[in-house]
Amino acid sequence: MKRVVMIGSGNVATSLALALKDKCEIVQVYSRTLANAESLAVRVGALATNDLKDLVNDAQVYIISVKDDVIAAVVDAVPDNGALWLHTSGSTSVSVFDGKRRRCGVLYPLQSFSKSHPACMSEVHFFVEGCDTAVTREIMAFAREISENVHEASSQDRQRLHVAAVFACNFANHMFTLAGEVLGEAGLPFDTMLPLIKTTVAKLDNMTPQESQTGPAARGDKKIIAAHLATLNDDKKDIYQLLSKSIMSRSNS
Amino acid sequence: MKRVVMIGSGNVATSLALALKDKCEIVQVYSRTLANAESLAVRVGALATNDLKDLVNDAQVYIISVKDDVIAAVVDAVPDNGALWLHTSGSTSVSVFDGKRRRCGVLYPLQSFSKSHPACMSEVHFFVEGCDTAVTREIMAFAREISENVHEASSQDRQRLHVAAVFACNFANHMFTLAGEVLGEAGLPFDTMLPLIKTTVAKLDNMTPQESQTGPAARGDKKIIAAHLATLNDDKKDIYQLLSKSIMSRSNS
Repeated sequence: MKRVVMIGSGNVATSLALALKDKCEIVQVYSRTLANAESLAVRVGALATNDLKDLVNDAQVYIISVKDDVIAAVVDAVPDNGALWLHTSGSTSVSVFDGKRRRCGVLYPLQSFSKSHPACMSEVHFFVEGCDTAVTREIMAFAREISENVHEASSQDRQRLHVAAVFACNFANHMFTLAGEVLGEAGLPFDTMLPLIKTTVAKLDNMTPQESQTGPAARGDKKIIAAHLATLNDDKKDIYQLLSKSIMSRSNS
Repeated sequence: MKRVVMIGSGNVATSLALALKDKCEIVQVYSRTLANAESLAVRVGALATNDLKDLVNDAQVYIISVKDDVIAAVVDAVPDNGALWLHTSGSTSVSVFDGKRRRCGVLYPLQSFSKSHPACMSEVHFFVEGCDTAVTREIMAFAREISENVHEASSQDRQRLHVAAVFACNFANHMFTLAGEVLGEAGLPFDTMLPLIKTTVAKLDNMTPQESQTGPAARGDKKIIAAHLATLNDDKKDIYQLLSKSIMSRSNS
């Protein structure tokens, strides 16, 4: 069993640690905040620390799953021990390890994690990149312990995936927030939207989103669009206008 | 069994007719294009016509499910026969019937319909409005033949629902289209997004979208936002910027 150190205790770190705990021995969890390290450590049978100097030296895999702008500082704070060092960031290049680790790479799970809503990790798509071909193979084998969907992706491709995920997940979810605001203004509950949202997503199993697009903008129904705009205020008005224009430009082509 | 005439053969008309065919007798389907009328009529055991003058006079319910800007013309083209006349539009007021029908109202199913992807009608939320209290009750009873989720809503509330649905369904789906474009530029398949999208939607069962919002804008990660913007072109750049700003303004509040 591989000995793994988890550096980080946020949503991604927690989901990964829980998925790994029966396949590996998670020996230690680090977090800047000791209580956070402890609360994850206790769930995966590991020791907790809030001091990078106290990291065990003899694990085989070190997973850095912290905020993007702290990754480089973590790499700098710990000397190379020849183990496999990975980060889990969509938008950080593998070059963050350059000159500082011999065996290193990226293990990027394309998913929106939350501690309260654990994802089914075996279905999550992982995108991996190693510093050389042998390491890439090693990371792919490691990722396959967790998921059936493991792909190789360059740092550039991974950034495209992250941008796409911002649209498909963060921005789509923001549309749900804005819908909730529109309903809330009329005292109507958000729940009435759920069947609609679920159908919209279910269609993606056998149609492209472009094919399944419906609504006033897709129909070019300028009268309805104008009537809707007249009822909107704050940034929802600008967003309605920009997105309708964006949909119309694609419907005509 | 109520005798029903379906005026229209589009996505909403088709889904409604299929849901009604075992609860009512659908006697006739009208479409401007005879072939369309026939192809729906044959599925529900009705007669087909493409001439409003040929509508049978003795049905109990007439459902006008045509494009919003044609509803008034249909109402004008057919004299009142005392039956219950309904339209299915989210954004058309019940006043379209004023002075032209004695018993009339609205039967609005809040769903994104497509002919190829039939919705489970018993779960769809219907919003109804009648020209008076007795008619409203009659429409509610009629709607309950199809769905468990029947609500009364004024024309104004219905318009809010429609605007909200444009955000939650049409605009969210457009985010999936834009994600697909970002991936396509890198030669990556859209399918890798599906687990992510499904998790995002599954979270809505026990969190508000505002609570479950993740991503660079929700974290206020301006460095990643700038890096993403630098890779985007056409209207995706404007959309990324506007939506990130919109998310950030709500995260701070």
